Amino acid sequence: MNIAIIGTGLIGQAWAIVFARGGCQVRLWDGDAAALERASGLIARQIAQLQDERLLDDAQAVSARIQSCGELAQALQGADYVQENLPEVLDIKQDIFRKLDALAAPQTVLASSTSSIPASAFTADLPGRHRCLVAHPVNPPYLVPVVELCGAPWTDAASMEKARSVMNQVGQKPVTVHKELEGFILNRLQGALLREAFRLVQKGYVSAEDLDVTVKDGLGLRWSFMGPFETIDLNAPRGLAEYCARYGGMFRSIATEQTGTEAWSPELVAELERQRREQLPQDELLQRRLWRDQRLMALMRHKRELPE
Amino acid sequence: MNIAIIGTGLIGQAWAIVFARGGCQVRLWDGDAAALERASGLIARQIAQLQDERLLDDAQAVSARIQSCGELAQALQGADYVQENLPEVLDIKQDIFRKLDALAAPQTVLASSTSSIPASAFTADLPGRHRCLVAHPVNPPYLVPVVELCGAPWTDAASMEKARSVMNQVGQKPVTVHKELEGFILNRLQGALLREAFRLVQKGYVSAEDLDVTVKDGLGLRWSFMGPFETIDLNAPRGLAEYCARYGGMFRSIATEQTGTEAWSPELVAELERQRREQLPQDELLQRRLWRDQRLMALMRHKRELPE
Repeated sequence: MNIAIIGTGLIGQAWAIVFARGGCQVRLWDGDAAALERASGLIARQIAQLQDERLLDDAQAVSARIQSCGELAQALQGADYVQENLPEVLDIKQDIFRKLDALAAPQTVLASSTSSIPASAFTADLPGRHRCLVAHPVNPPYLVPVVELCGAPWTDAASMEKARSVMNQVGQKPVTVHKELEGFILNRLQGALLREAFRLVQKGYVSAEDLDVTVKDGLGLRWSFMGPFETIDLNAPRGLAEYCARYGGMFRSIATEQTGTEAWSPELVAELERQRREQLPQDELLQRRLWRDQRLMALMRHKRELPE
Repeated sequence: MNIAIIGTGLIGQAWAIVFARGGCQVRLWDGDAAALERASGLIARQIAQLQDERLLDDAQAVSARIQSCGELAQALQGADYVQENLPEVLDIKQDIFRKLDALAAPQTVLASSTSSIPASAFTADLPGRHRCLVAHPVNPPYLVPVVELCGAPWTDAASMEKARSVMNQVGQKPVTVHKELEGFILNRLQGALLREAFRLVQKGYVSAEDLDVTVKDGLGLRWSFMGPFETIDLNAPRGLAEYCARYGGMFRSIATEQTGTEAWSPELVAELERQRREQLPQDELLQRRLWRDQRLMALMRHKRELPE
């Protein structure tokens, strides 16, 4: 399978690794020639690291499947699937999709990594708008496999299916979002939990530190290998409906207090920032991020070794 | 340290294992002599299984620290800390706490495992009400370490601190809830995420199966070793406040749609039950629960081997 990566910043580099690791031939293009050249080196270094971490088998073979292209048309030649990763600016998306639609072969699927702009905003006027969609990754996609696929109202089922199949083929976990919505699925779920977390700290029920413990040593454990529906389905003898009969009353009662948008007020954000800096000074953020990536890699190795 | 376990159903048995594994002397009592006898055998079997799973080192020594008592006063003799696990019925809690407060030495801390009854509802009239609190575990506490500690308005700081110290000593992860509230912290966070999950399926944005993928292959990965605050703190170069400046607008906008209590409506529960049964027939629930417990045990071994 031939893949074109358009835009070779952090996300584009990570996508190149995902597809090349998955056995695809990958062509890179970036409007900025210097950025494109930098990307090749950065990708090679990341591939070597992933091999050191046992998250990839043959660094040399993977690297050999990735090729830089000076011209957009050359990158798109023979591409089955295009993953676009330019900045999150509407004009830029409109401009690049116009070019992609004009240059790519008619059956090529055109996907954007955008997290905040719906496909309908930058594909409406294109002759090939039926083959355009959003394929939103979590950073970095070579470690976190979920990909949210969300078309515009005019995206056809075949293109959605093709994107899903491409993702499955390279080992990602595609999720189909059936209608456009702000935040897709992952950030809406995260937002719902964060809002309650902010409120609980704001009202003085718990410290930010203890709230984090509640998740990492409790609630978050099962969610790393089961979703929230499977979790409650297994938490009552006869399954989900019985769980809802038992606990729905409590959750419904709690829900009446889970309203408002004050969670993101400047005062509360400042207080949370203060609590976080007590736990972790700003100059240790970078080091802690490296720890996080090590933990994430270890978790992915752990998950790979276990039966689904 | 001497611990008394009052009520030896599933939760009481699991607590006995936590404390004995943590090096404490444990005395069990149950009003039902047959239940007490059954509990001893069940505890021994669970301890042996945990040793097989490498989650406990010396089954024989752990078992030797647990002793059954025919009389409540005998179980309480010399106890530093009492963990009560009777049924979730207000009258029963009031009755047993009256007895515990009358029989236990004055400095003994008295904690209940209740998930739904606040300490103020069953300790108001007790001479020793200042030493009573809720210590709410996640089932089973020997696998999931978080414990929510929540006192009544009259619980004193020393008793809360003592409970926290006991939990730390046996390797649990205590979380202090500063004021009584329905659902404590864990279930309020779970409820907030579940409500949005239910709504997203109800409105046709995503299937229950794909929503579960979004969590287990994306959102839930980091939450198994970092809490939600640390997660966002590490997701912007300068930390939490910068993250909120970038994404607060989106989350605030989404929050205006995250309202209502219709998530737990009978129609939606029925639809979700239908989707779950398509993925997992009812007669396979038990087997899947065993798989979950195996996965949870493997995850806890994995976490134990890594630096915090």
